[in-house]
Amino acid sequence: MKKWLQSVYSDGTGHYVSEPYPAKGERVDIQIRMLKNQSVKHVLLRSKEFGIEKLTEMKLFKMKNGLDYYKAQVRINDPVYRYQFYLVTEEKIYYYTQHRITDHIPDESRDFVILADYHPAKWIKESVFYQIFPDRFFNGNEKISVKDGEYSYQGHPAIRVKNWNTPAVDYGQTHALDFYGGDLEGVIKKLDYLSELGVNAIYLNPIFASPSVHKYDSLDYYHVDTHLGGDAALKRLIKKMHEREMKLMLDISINHTSSAAQWFNKENEFYQACVGAYQNPESELRKFYFWDDKGNYDTWCGVKTMPKLNYGSEELRRKVYKNRNSVLKKWMKEPYGIDGWRFDVADCLARNEVTDVHEEVLKEIRQELKSENPDIYLLAEDWADCSEDLKGDAWDGTMNYYGCARPIREFVGEIDLFHVRNPILSRVTCKMTAKQLAERITQFYAKLPCSVQYQMFNLLNSHDVTRLYNNPQVNTEEHRGAVMMMFALPGCPNVYYGDEILLEGRIDSTESCRYPMNWNRKEEFTEIYEFYRKLSRLKRSSQAMQDGGFQVFWDKDYIFAFSRFTEKEVIFVICSTDDKEYEIILPIENYGLEHFREKEDYFGIPLDTEKRDGKIICHIKPHQSYLITVPIEK
Amino acid sequence: MKKWLQSVYSDGTGHYVSEPYPAKGERVDIQIRMLKNQSVKHVLLRSKEFGIEKLTEMKLFKMKNGLDYYKAQVRINDPVYRYQFYLVTEEKIYYYTQHRITDHIPDESRDFVILADYHPAKWIKESVFYQIFPDRFFNGNEKISVKDGEYSYQGHPAIRVKNWNTPAVDYGQTHALDFYGGDLEGVIKKLDYLSELGVNAIYLNPIFASPSVHKYDSLDYYHVDTHLGGDAALKRLIKKMHEREMKLMLDISINHTSSAAQWFNKENEFYQACVGAYQNPESELRKFYFWDDKGNYDTWCGVKTMPKLNYGSEELRRKVYKNRNSVLKKWMKEPYGIDGWRFDVADCLARNEVTDVHEEVLKEIRQELKSENPDIYLLAEDWADCSEDLKGDAWDGTMNYYGCARPIREFVGEIDLFHVRNPILSRVTCKMTAKQLAERITQFYAKLPCSVQYQMFNLLNSHDVTRLYNNPQVNTEEHRGAVMMMFALPGCPNVYYGDEILLEGRIDSTESCRYPMNWNRKEEFTEIYEFYRKLSRLKRSSQAMQDGGFQVFWDKDYIFAFSRFTEKEVIFVICSTDDKEYEIILPIENYGLEHFREKEDYFGIPLDTEKRDGKIICHIKPHQSYLITVPIEK
Repeated sequence: MKKWLQSVYSDGTGHYVSEPYPAKGERVDIQIRMLKNQSVKHVLLRSKEFGIEKLTEMKLFKMKNGLDYYKAQVRINDPVYRYQFYLVTEEKIYYYTQHRITDHIPDESRDFVILADYHPAKWIKESVFYQIFPDRFFNGNEKISVKDGEYSYQGHPAIRVKNWNTPAVDYGQTHALDFYGGDLEGVIKKLDYLSELGVNAIYLNPIFASPSVHKYDSLDYYHVDTHLGGDAALKRLIKKMHEREMKLMLDISINHTSSAAQWFNKENEFYQACVGAYQNPESELRKFYFWDDKGNYDTWCGVKTMPKLNYGSEELRRKVYKNRNSVLKKWMKEPYGIDGWRFDVADCLARNEVTDVHEEVLKEIRQELKSENPDIYLLAEDWADCSEDLKGDAWDGTMNYYGCARPIREFVGEIDLFHVRNPILSRVTCKMTAKQLAERITQFYAKLPCSVQYQMFNLLNSHDVTRLYNNPQVNTEEHRGAVMMMFALPGCPNVYYGDEILLEGRIDSTESCRYPMNWNRKEEFTEIYEFYRKLSRLKRSSQAMQDGGFQVFWDKDYIFAFSRFTEKEVIFVICSTDDKEYEIILPIENYGLEHFREKEDYFGIPLDTEKRDGKIICHIKPHQSYLITVPIEK
Repeated sequence: MKKWLQSVYSDGTGHYVSEPYPAKGERVDIQIRMLKNQSVKHVLLRSKEFGIEKLTEMKLFKMKNGLDYYKAQVRINDPVYRYQFYLVTEEKIYYYTQHRITDHIPDESRDFVILADYHPAKWIKESVFYQIFPDRFFNGNEKISVKDGEYSYQGHPAIRVKNWNTPAVDYGQTHALDFYGGDLEGVIKKLDYLSELGVNAIYLNPIFASPSVHKYDSLDYYHVDTHLGGDAALKRLIKKMHEREMKLMLDISINHTSSAAQWFNKENEFYQACVGAYQNPESELRKFYFWDDKGNYDTWCGVKTMPKLNYGSEELRRKVYKNRNSVLKKWMKEPYGIDGWRFDVADCLARNEVTDVHEEVLKEIRQELKSENPDIYLLAEDWADCSEDLKGDAWDGTMNYYGCARPIREFVGEIDLFHVRNPILSRVTCKMTAKQLAERITQFYAKLPCSVQYQMFNLLNSHDVTRLYNNPQVNTEEHRGAVMMMFALPGCPNVYYGDEILLEGRIDSTESCRYPMNWNRKEEFTEIYEFYRKLSRLKRSSQAMQDGGFQVFWDKDYIFAFSRFTEKEVIFVICSTDDKEYEIILPIENYGLEHFREKEDYFGIPLDTEKRDGKIICHIKPHQSYLITVPIEK
């Protein structure tokens, strides 16, 4: 590939589009840049307007730091404005889409996309999330903690774990009824800790009334569980957080309720028999669920305690998201005012054998909630290729397992998170190459509109997967690289509570990643703590990290390297999973740099570089990762 | 790539899916086959059900001719059932989608797809179309032909061309009012000719009342133009055709009417001033079009004589396709009963700056027309990547410019049909490689559900593009290859009238491909005529050509080769645009062949093959094309 081709770059951010969030009908300037070169005679913008191809010649309007900038003005007539670039040389035409450059006409599946009338949660790009599983974080009020045997659920008693530092045990032993006593007051008391760490947003696992410790089986969406402090504690927490300019996202499963929920009430555990759909076939609530002729009900994944909600019911839609006081709107309003919703198991939401209104319900949720607050962040749980729900008319982003956690964890030595669940696939161990990692990440990102890419919720760990660093197969240095990549990919990073102090855990079950937070560990694990602190600070202060360009510039063998960049700064992220020392080229000229003088990376790791044949060669130590920040000369 | 990987094959036809058109909820067996090999330990089918990944192990159930066949039974629960195959070896997992095999998890954009409750026009796969531009085919009734000055249209007089054999002149000279006198009676009289040629379906360019020769500007959709013979002639034509088991497809532009149409009537050329929307702002018809405050109306591509229809109007939708006697249904019913509709400029249908109901209108049209007759063929004109409209809920197929005419014409030496219209792009001449051709074709086909691939309307020439063979840049032998590829790609071939006798024409304008049919030429051009006749016969008799598998097996340098195959027959299509002789390998074992003994191709072209190191080497002459049919031994 010709050298100048590797420098070609554009994206949908404000760096290349004069208004990245235009109204329909608005005119915007679109830019592209590339190394100054003699080959390119013309640059054309190829768009699709009302179904018809349109070609617009772009004008060379700026030359800076060895880069040529072209632009063209277009009118955003379609709700989804799609475009590619044609780079015309004497001998051939190159075609540039979000995915790659080809010398044949590419299809439109990886077009650049500008969404008209699109409202992202703009605060996301400056945010670093901290995810808290409430019961396991900090006990702020002993009085309200669940007591031993206080109630029973599905025939099992509630258990109060006496000693906070007891490792969490598996589901089979406690049926998710083992309470450590963490609560919202505990989160409030630890806000200083979080501010010091540098995070500025909290993702709270479910807090609505529920007998279980995970609370994905809600009894009542209208109230915060009293053992977590009730509605009042949430109100206090949000007030304290907003005073600090911290954002709060709540987690909810509107796919199903508990079978003991007020709406369902299978066995009178918490409500009287006259309440709920199960025991009252005549009830209006009956339509909220799926029933067959024999009175069997549909569930989430066959779990009988989680009856699936039926969005064929217009009344359910009103209750959950349409009414002024619907569940989802209630918590967005005063006196609460949450900033985001995370939707549990959103992949199967509003679809099953009987009915499929998935697409319709997602669009309605977006419409309803964005009209309540355009800045609300709508995050969905989906581990697979969920690009169909990420076109700008449904979710803002998804838990980025597909483009982040799954491939990166595999790159540093794990089996893919889906494959590991399958007895056949989990047996195949094969070291992932950098090329495979690059494909996995870019095939997904390139399918998403740019505005959506920058709204993805990046993560490595969560309440649903074992903690990466607890896996002895994973090299400590490579784990560092994984965290760096997670922070540096387009989107918003998420720190799962305790990751910053390498909280203990096993790797044998879901519960093994839900150990209680260890508040004595910070002093011992200063290095990793500082590493997270520095990454958080960088993410919150560097425009390159927030909405800078993103380009993979090395994916050979076991070295994966990408850049994040603006016209003022470039950040090189380099991760090796190789056993040997390795040489890579830093393509500094592609980013407007003339010299490279850095001696160490952002964390103080020494850099070993040399200039050879006019190129900057960087020697990469085995398993080492680097994050190099370089200001760009004027 | 390992050899056995190249043999891996499955598709969505009846050869690999026990019921390729299942009802929702139906169980089907899915098969995959590959060369017998020691590497594969397990084969898994990876599907998505209600948004959730599902893995099903496939069983080895058949070994035949050196090939292993695996199968699994699944339930088609989703309206769009998506799947991939995982081939598990000791060392790594291979992933097989419609596009290719990778060793990393592929995204879902090229999944195999089975559509539930999908109704294709099943006759398409056995059809060979012949496209007729009625005025230029044959005059069957002199009495009804347009007379010189019989009327004027947009200020220009109708012209009767005196001598049938006069070359067609450009638009500027005649304003599309130069009539040769071809009519429907003429088509009836030439049905023997068509039957002898071997085609069994006719695509007629528009025939509804219109003053122009092309009739894409209709006055009245409810009547066949009297100069073509009126409604009665159409009735007669269909009757005669159906007696011969020939199918008829009509062409219509429901995107716009003529500005002189009954519904619009701008200048009282054919209707009184009290008729139509233009002169009667109070008219109910006003809502059928788009008007701004100043009374300006929207048009197709800025052509003032073609006012664009406004599908925001429910009344228009009723008139065009919803009512029992709507335009589109009328011609599908007795006494007519057409077999297909071709929708002109369908790319921009029902969308413009004011409103975009494109997707909705397409779905409604499908629903309405398929419930009238599930076998109706719904064909859309779209020259670009129109995969969004080819998901099974809108068109059956499109005029395959994108995956056939455009890349194949470029492969044999033309500038891309879109690029040639642009002054910058048309200057770049660059010989297309076989790799580029393969990418262009497969990137598109692999995005379409299999049932749709086999419903595509393949073409090289049409009333809208200059005839390929009239371009002196195009080598005669290579043109032969282009026609072979067009016939052999999945989908239905279309012969543009006169292609079979290399009808004269220029290459400088649209009109230059609309020369009158030359009825004296057949004897002189026996070879090409026989070539078409043989291709038609093959397409109509060979199951491999109809719904056999499709695999590109060679795409190096300037040699493009693919196979069509069943368990009983394999067809190799090989096309060279190379100046030099070239060697390729025929991978016969991938198709269950043990020996290769063929001495000539289907057309009698001698084959020069040898066995070397156990491989069948085929020597390809410069610019030569081959179509080799090989029966498979039991």
